[in-house]
Amino acid sequence: MPVGALRYEGGKLIIVDQTRLPGELVYLTLETRAQVWEAIKKLQVRGAPAIGVCAAFGVLVGIREAKARTTADAVAAGLETAAYLATSRPTAVNLFNALDRMRGLLAQCNTLASADEVSSRVEAEAVAMFNEDAETCRSLGEHGAALISDGDGVLTHCNAGGLAATQYGTALAAMFRAQELGKKFRVFADETRPLLQGARLTAWELMQAGIDVTLICDNMAAQVMREGRVQLAIVGADRIAANGDAANKIGTYSVAVCCKAHGIPFYVSAPLTTFDFDIENGSQIPIEQRDENEITCGFGTRTAPEGVKVYNPAFDVTPADLIAGIVTEKGILRPPYRDAIAAALKA
Amino acid sequence: MPVGALRYEGGKLIIVDQTRLPGELVYLTLETRAQVWEAIKKLQVRGAPAIGVCAAFGVLVGIREAKARTTADAVAAGLETAAYLATSRPTAVNLFNALDRMRGLLAQCNTLASADEVSSRVEAEAVAMFNEDAETCRSLGEHGAALISDGDGVLTHCNAGGLAATQYGTALAAMFRAQELGKKFRVFADETRPLLQGARLTAWELMQAGIDVTLICDNMAAQVMREGRVQLAIVGADRIAANGDAANKIGTYSVAVCCKAHGIPFYVSAPLTTFDFDIENGSQIPIEQRDENEITCGFGTRTAPEGVKVYNPAFDVTPADLIAGIVTEKGILRPPYRDAIAAALKA
Repeated sequence: MPVGALRYEGGKLIIVDQTRLPGELVYLTLETRAQVWEAIKKLQVRGAPAIGVCAAFGVLVGIREAKARTTADAVAAGLETAAYLATSRPTAVNLFNALDRMRGLLAQCNTLASADEVSSRVEAEAVAMFNEDAETCRSLGEHGAALISDGDGVLTHCNAGGLAATQYGTALAAMFRAQELGKKFRVFADETRPLLQGARLTAWELMQAGIDVTLICDNMAAQVMREGRVQLAIVGADRIAANGDAANKIGTYSVAVCCKAHGIPFYVSAPLTTFDFDIENGSQIPIEQRDENEITCGFGTRTAPEGVKVYNPAFDVTPADLIAGIVTEKGILRPPYRDAIAAALKA
Repeated sequence: MPVGALRYEGGKLIIVDQTRLPGELVYLTLETRAQVWEAIKKLQVRGAPAIGVCAAFGVLVGIREAKARTTADAVAAGLETAAYLATSRPTAVNLFNALDRMRGLLAQCNTLASADEVSSRVEAEAVAMFNEDAETCRSLGEHGAALISDGDGVLTHCNAGGLAATQYGTALAAMFRAQELGKKFRVFADETRPLLQGARLTAWELMQAGIDVTLICDNMAAQVMREGRVQLAIVGADRIAANGDAANKIGTYSVAVCCKAHGIPFYVSAPLTTFDFDIENGSQIPIEQRDENEITCGFGTRTAPEGVKVYNPAFDVTPADLIAGIVTEKGILRPPYRDAIAAALKA
């Protein structure tokens, strides 16, 4: 079973501190709402699905921390915690969705008999969200694994693995499942500058699962494709527009362009919650600009001149026409995506 | 005047230690052939033209170090040094050409009256090679600058600047000259993993010259192109085959593929000495594989799991059909390159 970002055990919320990987596998028990907030803010827990589930448990942590005596106090503590945790990261839609779901639940809790009952309901909801995510990831893996054949080279970018979710992840779920099925394949993992999630997390996760993984710099992907070593690419997504345009970690678009030039199918793997029908196409997806130090001072050493201008978009958008298929928990969607997405959401 | 990789002053070979940039501008005086070998091997001096000229002076350093008393001993020391320096880097054709030229000279030195006369002839030849390179770079700049218009965004990869040559460089020569001519343009510099020559050297050189430069990660180039910010790309080359296929720093091919996809002209700038007519096409160019630590332990911090497999080719080959033109000291060559190259070499 691949390592997941978090688990709930003996009434405790336990996360993998991803900032310590790949050097050390350190687990943290989060016992205050401030610890949950910090863990999300500092990227100790990261990946859209994992952040959402962690925040859901964070509401439970906040209610317990408040030691509420009455139903009303427990509900208030839950709502306060939800509002507080929403300030931890600005972009993750799963974070806001998870907290909205918790607020909706709390709104129904005012009639419960005690603070303990509120806690129990919140706990059950967070556990349900965990299980839903785990089941979704398993389905993504099942559908995605069908794309991988013996002898294939699979390229991936960034980290869309168990560490980004409760378990299995999204893009990597296909590889974990293919491995379980005994398929023989190898993975090329882009290191994914500037934050090196591919080197630090994806390579580590795949090695833990015994999958044959080779680490490359992002700028080597085209060359590896040209050498005939890549038969397909699978990546995750942070948000997908109604027309199929997909936002994902910066560099994903470059992979898609290179796949197109080499006749290699490029797949996105993402749960249906990633689709945002309020967004017609990719040009409407806001792109977070991140700190220039990520590029100029990576990992403690200054490697660029003081004062140099930097452009550091966190994401890019891959247009739908470069995407061969979108792997969802309901199956693989094929172009034209507008109809395929609508059908999957109805199914 | 842009900073150059090396100079010969007061009978001493002095290089910029490029491994210390951009933090510190440190000059090294190379006084033994082992120091010259190490400087090339460790990339303290790098860039095809700079390596060639440095090796030529290295032969002089070797003769002096041997303290030869006879003409024959001096010639033998020169030939031994040339053979030794040829083992420092496997790919740079300029290195081999420079050393061949020195061997040819040494073959004519057996009739000279003394070891000192041999040294003088070798010194004069190395100085001539320095001056030829400087003149070539100025011509590359003149022709390349004509490609840049007011308002353009110019993308470059790795470092093909003054630090890669005696002065001005090859690809960056176009930008230095365009700046001298008062053109208004901006440059996007790929950081160029794994060794970050773009971040450390190109950004530094362009800033020194007052050119508007923005540093990006390699995987952002496609996105910057998609945003319409790039009107042309200019890169250097380590070796160009008879058909125009060009070997250059890993990641160059990816830039060329992305340029093609966005309708952006992709130019190579290189002196005619870069052409190798013994090589029919790019598939025959040997690609140096470098140490995995460059990727897993960049700049002092381990950022990938212990034991992970790594693929680290130092170069890739951009096929001629992705190259809009090759800027040489005799003008800009256009496809079909076989005829254009032959004509330029005859001119």
